[in-house]
Amino acid sequence: MSKTDPGRFFEDFRLGQVLVHATPRTVTAGDVALYTALYGPRFSLFSSDEFARACGLAAAPVDPLVAFHVVFGKTVPDISLNAVANLGYAEGRFLAPVFPGDTLAATSEVIGLKENSNGRTGVVYVRTTGTNQRGEPVLSYVRWVMVRKRDPAAVVEGQSVPDLAKAVAPGDLVVPQGLDVSAYDWALAGAPHAFEDYAVGEKIDHVDGMAVEEAEHQMATRLWQNTAKVHFNQFERSKDPSGRRLVYGGVVISTAKALSFNGLQNAGLVLGINGGRHVAPFFAGSTVFAWSQVLDKADLGSIGALRLRLVATKDRPCTDFPNKDGDGVYDPAVILDFDYWAGVPKRG
Amino acid sequence: MSKTDPGRFFEDFRLGQVLVHATPRTVTAGDVALYTALYGPRFSLFSSDEFARACGLAAAPVDPLVAFHVVFGKTVPDISLNAVANLGYAEGRFLAPVFPGDTLAATSEVIGLKENSNGRTGVVYVRTTGTNQRGEPVLSYVRWVMVRKRDPAAVVEGQSVPDLAKAVAPGDLVVPQGLDVSAYDWALAGAPHAFEDYAVGEKIDHVDGMAVEEAEHQMATRLWQNTAKVHFNQFERSKDPSGRRLVYGGVVISTAKALSFNGLQNAGLVLGINGGRHVAPFFAGSTVFAWSQVLDKADLGSIGALRLRLVATKDRPCTDFPNKDGDGVYDPAVILDFDYWAGVPKRG
Amino acid sequence: MSKTDPGRFFEDFRLGQVLVHATPRTVTAGDVALYTALYGPRFSLFSSDEFARACGLAAAPVDPLVAFHVVFGKTVPDISLNAVANLGYAEGRFLAPVFPGDTLAATSEVIGLKENSNGRTGVVYVRTTGTNQRGEPVLSYVRWVMVRKRDPAAVVEGQSVPDLAKAVAPGDLVVPQGLDVSAYDWALAGAPHAFEDYAVGEKIDHVDGMAVEEAEHQMATRLWQNTAKVHFNQFERSKDPSGRRLVYGGVVISTAKALSFNGLQNAGLVLGINGGRHVAPFFAGSTVFAWSQVLDKADLGSIGALRLRLVATKDRPCTDFPNKDGDGVYDPAVILDFDYWAGVPKRG
Repeated sequence: MSKTDPGRFFEDFRLGQVLVHATPRTVTAGDVALYTALYGPRFSLFSSDEFARACGLAAAPVDPLVAFHVVFGKTVPDISLNAVANLGYAEGRFLAPVFPGDTLAATSEVIGLKENSNGRTGVVYVRTTGTNQRGEPVLSYVRWVMVRKRDPAAVVEGQSVPDLAKAVAPGDLVVPQGLDVSAYDWALAGAPHAFEDYAVGEKIDHVDGMAVEEAEHQMATRLWQNTAKVHFNQFERSKDPSGRRLVYGGVVISTAKALSFNGLQNAGLVLGINGGRHVAPFFAGSTVFAWSQVLDKADLGSIGALRLRLVATKDRPCTDFPNKDGDGVYDPAVILDFDYWAGVPKRG
Repeated sequence: MSKTDPGRFFEDFRLGQVLVHATPRTVTAGDVALYTALYGPRFSLFSSDEFARACGLAAAPVDPLVAFHVVFGKTVPDISLNAVANLGYAEGRFLAPVFPGDTLAATSEVIGLKENSNGRTGVVYVRTTGTNQRGEPVLSYVRWVMVRKRDPAAVVEGQSVPDLAKAVAPGDLVVPQGLDVSAYDWALAGAPHAFEDYAVGEKIDHVDGMAVEEAEHQMATRLWQNTAKVHFNQFERSKDPSGRRLVYGGVVISTAKALSFNGLQNAGLVLGINGGRHVAPFFAGSTVFAWSQVLDKADLGSIGALRLRLVATKDRPCTDFPNKDGDGVYDPAVILDFDYWAGVPKRG
Repeated sequence: MSKTDPGRFFEDFRLGQVLVHATPRTVTAGDVALYTALYGPRFSLFSSDEFARACGLAAAPVDPLVAFHVVFGKTVPDISLNAVANLGYAEGRFLAPVFPGDTLAATSEVIGLKENSNGRTGVVYVRTTGTNQRGEPVLSYVRWVMVRKRDPAAVVEGQSVPDLAKAVAPGDLVVPQGLDVSAYDWALAGAPHAFEDYAVGEKIDHVDGMAVEEAEHQMATRLWQNTAKVHFNQFERSKDPSGRRLVYGGVVISTAKALSFNGLQNAGLVLGINGGRHVAPFFAGSTVFAWSQVLDKADLGSIGALRLRLVATKDRPCTDFPNKDGDGVYDPAVILDFDYWAGVPKRG
């Protein structure tokens, strides 16, 4: 029997199936340095042990998106190796901060299966949980992907589509244990904008643009042991109409999030992921721009939370906030529409 | 006198000469993160401190190839700065695992010298030993390179060619002290294939392809402080018929090894290097594929060892195992033919 | 009010103003690994904890240029986001070594302001101080940049140009506390050249050439959270006559410094920066070469110091030491002229 793993096809999934993903991963200061080099994030809470200690934490945790990428990467070989498209995210919650030295592992439960009418593909819904070395969950989220069938004639029993929340309820957001922003240093953080200063509906142009190179997105994606072929196999991709390696969507999310510092300096702490859509494929060589809109606000007691919509474009500044029109058709430059909750200190 | 070091030429070597290589190097979690970002390896033993502890080790050691690259890099300024070609490896043995925080240094003994009939070059054989901060050897291997003569008229005394083993004898392989795979977690490791499941002669296509960019191979090579000019000096290389910087052969080995995870998930622990040939030069922009064949098996008691042949190609999938023909002529896509021993847990 | 930070314009600066820069940064082993991967430095003092301990230090400090880049990066959003050009450095002194785990923060005092006669730009002089988590200064230097005015009609009061030293006086150089080179291992360091072996006026060709890729300079610049748009925003740069992203000058300095190992193996410890000029813009794809000249020598007691001029070129080997002519006009290949003090062990 061949030992080569071809990855799962649609008919290989079963409702309720629990997949234990391979390759647990110890997150280190090396990962943080690479994350900084690849995206240039400047949120003080993740940049300085001293700043984090002044906020009640033992040391600087990693950017929550690092935890997301690590956990996501583990799921790829089991879930999306034969994926046609990554369709969406929902109900993402960051449950505990991750510190360098922590080891993350991941499991996924199949919570939905729906064959497409063409009989050649189907949509797989999984709820993935990342845990640390103490078995504590650090992250949970739902993702759905379109996966090829190996055999178009295969019959998949027990299909169902899960009922997913449009947004994580503020009451379900978890503030990192011990976080105390009573002595928050706004100057070191880079801006005086507190929770109280943001208004629902407010739009922020993040101004800066960031070019992405092939070497950068490949390194970023391999760093998380994400093995999806479309990001690396140029020989195969040469046969695609684009002729190009596809940039991992997570690279676009992290690039846009790093750009969002200009205007959201105190909103680096991602607490929840409500949804996200990779509106168009992104290829190396283009420059990413981004803007944000405040969709909602919630007072969590010790801190506030902003529900933010982060829109990224390629090769198009966001001065005029490129968006979708009344019919839901996006400006052709838009590549990402991401909906998340971020914790923000209150002025108090 | 000029302080610029021109590197040694063939007539500068003496049989029995011992070279103390410069720049000891502390290996860190930063190196591990970069190794992951550059190649995407997924072997759990080197990825997770928790997994390594469950296997009896104090923490996750670095991939043995990291130790190899560090030690190899140190030897370049003293041995191969004026090399025409890296001809071969033999008798490589990994003698102790290397952990982040360990400091590696290297020495080489000249064990063979053979001038070529053209009088312009000669072959230098060295046995290199890498040691850690306690002076314990962590790695030993023989390498031979073709080196230019400074003066074609120079006479080199005491020439001789060493008698090298075709393969490291299983009895000479060293299992890392403390390694205990009795509680090995096959699910977290990514596959159930144990030592018993591999048959001599068995071939495995590793399926995936990995493109290599100029920035990636340059970073990978500088990381190990390998200074060979052919990898970095584009101005000079523009005069070469290829017009291209040559990718360090170690980049091809590590790329192919990382790809080998698909089918050899439990065989990441390199114990010995029997031989290796960089069959053809490799340039950035191409995609590396790989396949392996089981050449031999040896029961080492606590674990098993597989003697593996790892063949890498450029821009050619390995579904049909591209090889050399009866006359020893390689398929034109083959770039690497590497022969090594890997430790594999037994099912028990 | 928009939360987007447009950066300061010339009329936003005031003489005596103290700017607290955002985003303190914990320096880690991950940064050291990346610095090694991006430049390939080989100075043993920064490469090996064991070597550094044998020199009286607790562990390997980071290359002083790492501290410089970190501190410089913090100042960019506050000082040079709207800069037309980085004009010069002076009075740079490294005051304490930085070790992985240290957290650096930075403040700058405006010490000079001079409007240009065109009324559209002005020169801002700042003295920047980097401090560690104990509040100890680790680095201090003066930099001056040409900054745009927002409003050409704005009047800037209190203009003055500071009187800056042509070179740091040897008595002001600070030898790292505890440094003891009495047991310095010249073989591990890579060369026997001691302080006594260098003569004022001596020139050294560093021979090697290093190509720089777009991905590399972007990663190097983001690593230090340097946000200057010219390095990253290809979309915007496409409108520039060059059509190219500009490489951060610090990348050229660090590349040339790493190349200087060949001939200055024992002079890695930068103690002071006397001046520096980015003679011409540098773009990715070219190969950097470098040569050095000994400008002065000073005996600091426990060690010596060399005042060195480091000249870097693009796509031109430095065998004949490309320089400026009698009129101060540089060879067109020269991109950097950097003047610094380096500590060097004495033979004793």
